[in-house]
Amino acid sequence: MLLMNGSSRENGNTARLAQIVLEGIAHQQIYMKDFSITPIIDKRHDPEGFTPVADDYEKIIRLVREHDILIFATPIYWYGMSGQMKLFIDRWSQSLRDPHFSFKEEMKSKKAFVVAVGGDDPYIKGLPLIQQFQYIFQFVGLTYIGYVIGQGNAPDEILSDQRALSEAKYWNKIFRSL
Amino acid sequence: MLLMNGSSRENGNTARLAQIVLEGIAHQQIYMKDFSITPIIDKRHDPEGFTPVADDYEKIIRLVREHDILIFATPIYWYGMSGQMKLFIDRWSQSLRDPHFSFKEEMKSKKAFVVAVGGDDPYIKGLPLIQQFQYIFQFVGLTYIGYVIGQGNAPDEILSDQRALSEAKYWNKIFRSL
Amino acid sequence: MLLMNGSSRENGNTARLAQIVLEGIAHQQIYMKDFSITPIIDKRHDPEGFTPVADDYEKIIRLVREHDILIFATPIYWYGMSGQMKLFIDRWSQSLRDPHFSFKEEMKSKKAFVVAVGGDDPYIKGLPLIQQFQYIFQFVGLTYIGYVIGQGNAPDEILSDQRALSEAKYWNKIFRSL
Amino acid sequence: MLLMNGSSRENGNTARLAQIVLEGIAHQQIYMKDFSITPIIDKRHDPEGFTPVADDYEKIIRLVREHDILIFATPIYWYGMSGQMKLFIDRWSQSLRDPHFSFKEEMKSKKAFVVAVGGDDPYIKGLPLIQQFQYIFQFVGLTYIGYVIGQGNAPDEILSDQRALSEAKYWNKIFRSL
Repeated sequence: MLLMNGSSRENGNTARLAQIVLEGIAHQQIYMKDFSITPIIDKRHDPEGFTPVADDYEKIIRLVREHDILIFATPIYWYGMSGQMKLFIDRWSQSLRDPHFSFKEEMKSKKAFVVAVGGDDPYIKGLPLIQQFQYIFQFVGLTYIGYVIGQGNAPDEILSDQRALSEAKYWNKIFRSL
Repeated sequence: MLLMNGSSRENGNTARLAQIVLEGIAHQQIYMKDFSITPIIDKRHDPEGFTPVADDYEKIIRLVREHDILIFATPIYWYGMSGQMKLFIDRWSQSLRDPHFSFKEEMKSKKAFVVAVGGDDPYIKGLPLIQQFQYIFQFVGLTYIGYVIGQGNAPDEILSDQRALSEAKYWNKIFRSL
Repeated sequence: MLLMNGSSRENGNTARLAQIVLEGIAHQQIYMKDFSITPIIDKRHDPEGFTPVADDYEKIIRLVREHDILIFATPIYWYGMSGQMKLFIDRWSQSLRDPHFSFKEEMKSKKAFVVAVGGDDPYIKGLPLIQQFQYIFQFVGLTYIGYVIGQGNAPDEILSDQRALSEAKYWNKIFRSL
Repeated sequence: MLLMNGSSRENGNTARLAQIVLEGIAHQQIYMKDFSITPIIDKRHDPEGFTPVADDYEKIIRLVREHDILIFATPIYWYGMSGQMKLFIDRWSQSLRDPHFSFKEEMKSKKAFVVAVGGDDPYIKGLPLIQQFQYIFQFVGLTYIGYVIGQGNAPDEILSDQRALSEAKYWNKIFRSL
């Protein structure tokens, strides 16, 4: 299980909620902020195709390939995933054309889960993000296990969102049983 | 009028569609890719607050402040705005706390328009992005003039999307009359 | 507390889930199907306005006015609320113009909750319905307490949806504490 | 081409916009209000299945079966299709189990288009409805040609919505070329 945290803060609300989802479950955690990811340069239609980029993107992809379950944990920044996480997903267009392995074929056997924490009415205004992830996962063939939304702004505020905690505990039971 | 293009390619489909919207109308165009923007580090809850970041963000903000109408033109990457554009908008959280001017107060008197071009059923799968922009604009008080969606993948494919061209021409008339 | 069930079946999955939400809490339950509601005839722009309709609509409105919390429980039929429930809500346009009381003024002091149960990926495909209710409640000033989504097709299938049961129990605690 | 109008008013804004879309194109028009449609009684899980209903539903289905292109034109009532139209679509669950013909098989060869006219920010608040139609069409295999949204409340107000008129004229060209 690979937990990818898109937050710019360690141990922020998003991390807290993800920790409850994954309590007692072996997993590897990374923060996107600890990896340098260059914005995609769209070369899908260049004759020579994409050129290798000297950054940390492939490091994360290697981790992705090693795990069966991918947890996308992101604070809801401006009603979407964080820019850091988006930079990473944008680069999937490059992996789709990577001749060394079939990205889509490998993704098809994996599952994905979303943790999204926002401060402004996330249970409603976070829904476009949930729908966006659905389209993303559908495109690469990832099975969408589910999602948990949480409300929180100030540090640890998520711990007062009983709705989120209750849902996170439910998912913890599910993940323990997998 | 400030046209902010989130694409990684110059003169791509997004730019083409935006050009039709703005044909014959004085405007300044920038590509987000020509500006280095650091991912936000969320310090909203740090006692000392945000610290200045040595990148090009403030250059764009200066341009934003100078214009009354903001055009957000973005390719639909993975059913959302491009990472480059998201990095920029994420940093608004910092501007909201900038003591040198009132970001929200200034945004309230401005208007915003969205151009979004995607390859995979954008008229349906681009709708969460349109809704996200609605929440973004609402939060800072920007008036949402409208949006135009276009379909295109390969270079200049947008020029075959008669629906997009027709809508872009409609908006061109509107912008000319402003 | 008024539980309005839009289902065509008594004790179906929607009713089961709503019962868990409201277990041990005094409430009045009605099935929309037991009331005859005529489709609205839009006379907002007729000089003489709406004319009284001889059906059961006003009976439900009387109940609505008597309760502070309104639970809209509906099966997700074709990715929306049931036609029976929609017929009822459509008629609110008439109540908005009722000279005998201020519908909007009274709604402003009430709260609303949604229970929605569907068979086809309701946690994703039910989200447009959740957004629609948001717009409905916002228009009349109802406070949107929250929602619970459940999955179920065959009778009592909802009882196997642990995610829904877990969320329903959370909401039960909340409603008990009100 | 079959134009199904869900409005309670003849020649209202929805009809006006649909007329522009279909100007000069042979089509049959019906108003849902002229047909009596009983709310569905969900008997999918009854041993004896659905029982015949004595109303006008089958009359509309006969028309649906005779046409290759179905235009769903509805005023946006409370951010959704009108109750009259929803009653009709809800009954599709019965047609899906009709042993006399394969509803889904026949729908797969047809195409669908949506005209939706609302008074309260329909270009944004009408989007959940557009998404709902996507799920509906997907379920039965109807090809979603597209949609046009319009703004209008008072009679003929739609004729001032240049954006809607412009899009309707675009679609008129498309339908003429089919």
